Amino acid sequence: MGIVRRTYERYGFEPLETPAFENIETLLGKYGEEGNKLIFKILRRGEHEQSGDADLALRYDLTVPLARVIAQYQNELPKFFKRYQIQPVWRADRPARGRFREFYQCDIDSIGSMSAGVEVDQMAAVSDVLLQLGFSDFTLRLNHRGVLYGLLAGAGVGAAQHGDALIALDKLDKIGRDGVAREFNTRGIPESVAVRCLEQFSVPAGERPDDTIRRLGEMLGNDDPSTANLRLITTLAAATSAGDKLRIDLNLARGLSYYTGAIMEIVVPDLAGSLGGGGRYDNLVGMFLGRDVPACGFSLGLERIIVVMTERNMFPEGVVRGSVEVMVTLWNEDSRADALALASEMRGAGLRVDIYPDAEKLGKQFKYASSRNVPFVAIVGDDERANGMVSIKDLRTGDQQAIARGDAAQYVATRRQL
Amino acid sequence: MGIVRRTYERYGFEPLETPAFENIETLLGKYGEEGNKLIFKILRRGEHEQSGDADLALRYDLTVPLARVIAQYQNELPKFFKRYQIQPVWRADRPARGRFREFYQCDIDSIGSMSAGVEVDQMAAVSDVLLQLGFSDFTLRLNHRGVLYGLLAGAGVGAAQHGDALIALDKLDKIGRDGVAREFNTRGIPESVAVRCLEQFSVPAGERPDDTIRRLGEMLGNDDPSTANLRLITTLAAATSAGDKLRIDLNLARGLSYYTGAIMEIVVPDLAGSLGGGGRYDNLVGMFLGRDVPACGFSLGLERIIVVMTERNMFPEGVVRGSVEVMVTLWNEDSRADALALASEMRGAGLRVDIYPDAEKLGKQFKYASSRNVPFVAIVGDDERANGMVSIKDLRTGDQQAIARGDAAQYVATRRQL
Repeated sequence: MGIVRRTYERYGFEPLETPAFENIETLLGKYGEEGNKLIFKILRRGEHEQSGDADLALRYDLTVPLARVIAQYQNELPKFFKRYQIQPVWRADRPARGRFREFYQCDIDSIGSMSAGVEVDQMAAVSDVLLQLGFSDFTLRLNHRGVLYGLLAGAGVGAAQHGDALIALDKLDKIGRDGVAREFNTRGIPESVAVRCLEQFSVPAGERPDDTIRRLGEMLGNDDPSTANLRLITTLAAATSAGDKLRIDLNLARGLSYYTGAIMEIVVPDLAGSLGGGGRYDNLVGMFLGRDVPACGFSLGLERIIVVMTERNMFPEGVVRGSVEVMVTLWNEDSRADALALASEMRGAGLRVDIYPDAEKLGKQFKYASSRNVPFVAIVGDDERANGMVSIKDLRTGDQQAIARGDAAQYVATRRQL
Repeated sequence: MGIVRRTYERYGFEPLETPAFENIETLLGKYGEEGNKLIFKILRRGEHEQSGDADLALRYDLTVPLARVIAQYQNELPKFFKRYQIQPVWRADRPARGRFREFYQCDIDSIGSMSAGVEVDQMAAVSDVLLQLGFSDFTLRLNHRGVLYGLLAGAGVGAAQHGDALIALDKLDKIGRDGVAREFNTRGIPESVAVRCLEQFSVPAGERPDDTIRRLGEMLGNDDPSTANLRLITTLAAATSAGDKLRIDLNLARGLSYYTGAIMEIVVPDLAGSLGGGGRYDNLVGMFLGRDVPACGFSLGLERIIVVMTERNMFPEGVVRGSVEVMVTLWNEDSRADALALASEMRGAGLRVDIYPDAEKLGKQFKYASSRNVPFVAIVGDDERANGMVSIKDLRTGDQQAIARGDAAQYVATRRQL
């Protein structure tokens, strides 16, 4: 989470947090029919509780709350607003590998500019996050809602059915070409049209983005603005870390209904589903504000990244946060105040120090420290106390040294990294 | 939050997070009647939604979820378990100064030992947090549920009314002595008993803890175990940073029903209510596990600390997290890829860099950077590009220098702290 945070900050995104719940009307109707069902709703309080009504709901993503914030604080926000937000969201989904009912999203969003530089900035930021975490084999899938609509129209799908077609297309990875064709069929799109669609949408493995865009130009015309947008994004991305990860994927549809322009997704070979995704959503703020505000965002799923990193054994050794560096043993009840004072001195020197809470046998205390992987124990027995010394035992080597009390913290500090 | 986290870690507490919601049965009945009403409840999903039933509820504090975790994972946890947890909790309370419906608690809890050293460890940890944040005038109020029950019994309040009496006593700060006497009265405790109680509970301003405990010994007998516990805690605390902040406050009752031993609260003169509080709760885990497990905890309220720090102007200048250090201007559309590349280089050197998104007039871009308090802007005009240079303008001084492109990041990095 620290790496995500620091990388986002290097890209000029500033932190924002929003409350866990929103008014239920703010969320309903923003995520499509499926999404509506997965929203956790909070019961009215007090006298209204018996009614069974819900007035609040838990965040389903970080994008809609941001749009609400933009609309609410429009006069206090700068002209361009780049924020990151790392907070949990909640979905009443069936749990699976890397899919939880509560999970952290790590979002970046840029408000106020229609420039393709925004998409590139965000693709570079998320690529940098993954590179920093040690990923090298991810792919940035890029497509455009306008391209999708253009191809659907060209294949003979009427505008009224574009939404349905995209929902079916979005499932391609899960249900395959035959499944999509069947879904098209149940939604009243003829077999022949479905076949034509799937042909147009397919991208040969390994095709370079430039070539895909060239083919697109042939299909939609070279002056098609969506194609031109993809061309510009691809060209600019070459100047960033996202450049050699990019692939135009005409099958990419993205489930959420609020996207209006470029759509993006980041995938690795060993995880079905994505590590994250995003896109341009120029109309969402307008649903709250009454006038449109250009916006684009990208969201990384923290737990999915952790699942893959864990399975690939990508976490460095000793990454356990905040683990104890030295345990002060308790010689007897009478020496408790002295143990507290020693712990206090060592903490003052920046060490992470625990005190064994009960005056049990020293062997038992050592065994406990060992079981907790604490590298050092400090012993102040009667002899040590009389001489102003502390015995420090390195449990990794078994080595024990009597150290002048004033030097004990420094002694541990210089040896903890061995 | 970083200071809280690091200080807790120096005391040997390890991080834990729990889900935002618990089964509703886990929370009900743990916070008293008032608390029950303030729990946010989540509507059943799917086909059950129409029933208006709630099956889940949002965390009301971090202690009950911890007790649930202890009971659930008893066989995987160490014999002594010290964890900290910094997460939001939710209460359907009426918002006021420093009181929100969603707020962060910063909890430490120690499980598995009955030693008074545990209470002292925690009092020292929270004192250290406040000292590190720059507080010097806080008071650690200390009392003991056993002492309260002893004093109530001595004043003639029957055991069946102890709970009621504590609820009334807990409001002393808000409603005054007359208010408490009235509350006693409505709960069937005679006027004379109420007066005797309030007399016994009062502690003269500035009385030293030792003296209060001596008086307690006279009232409850010197072999009273609760008094002995307070005496030991007070003696041991003298070896830590909590020592000179401690005050025995016999009025302190703490609202939550699960405390069984020492109770603690931390206050500052300029905030009604506390910055945090805690105590020993040896029976709570038993409500889930069927056998009691010794436990003690302390919770700091983040927003209350922030309210006081803000009002006292205690935050250091420039503490704004992640603010942009340099903004790369956009000369024209053709130079966009080059601006991205320059930003990328500077980010690689660890700087926080933003790019102006649209190719507007340079004056407008400068003005924007200035309004965002960005100290440096980078300009790559046609001349600079031809010569492999970057112009860096320090907006704080107006000074502008042409720097070789390879040295630009270093130039900004060495000057950003001025």
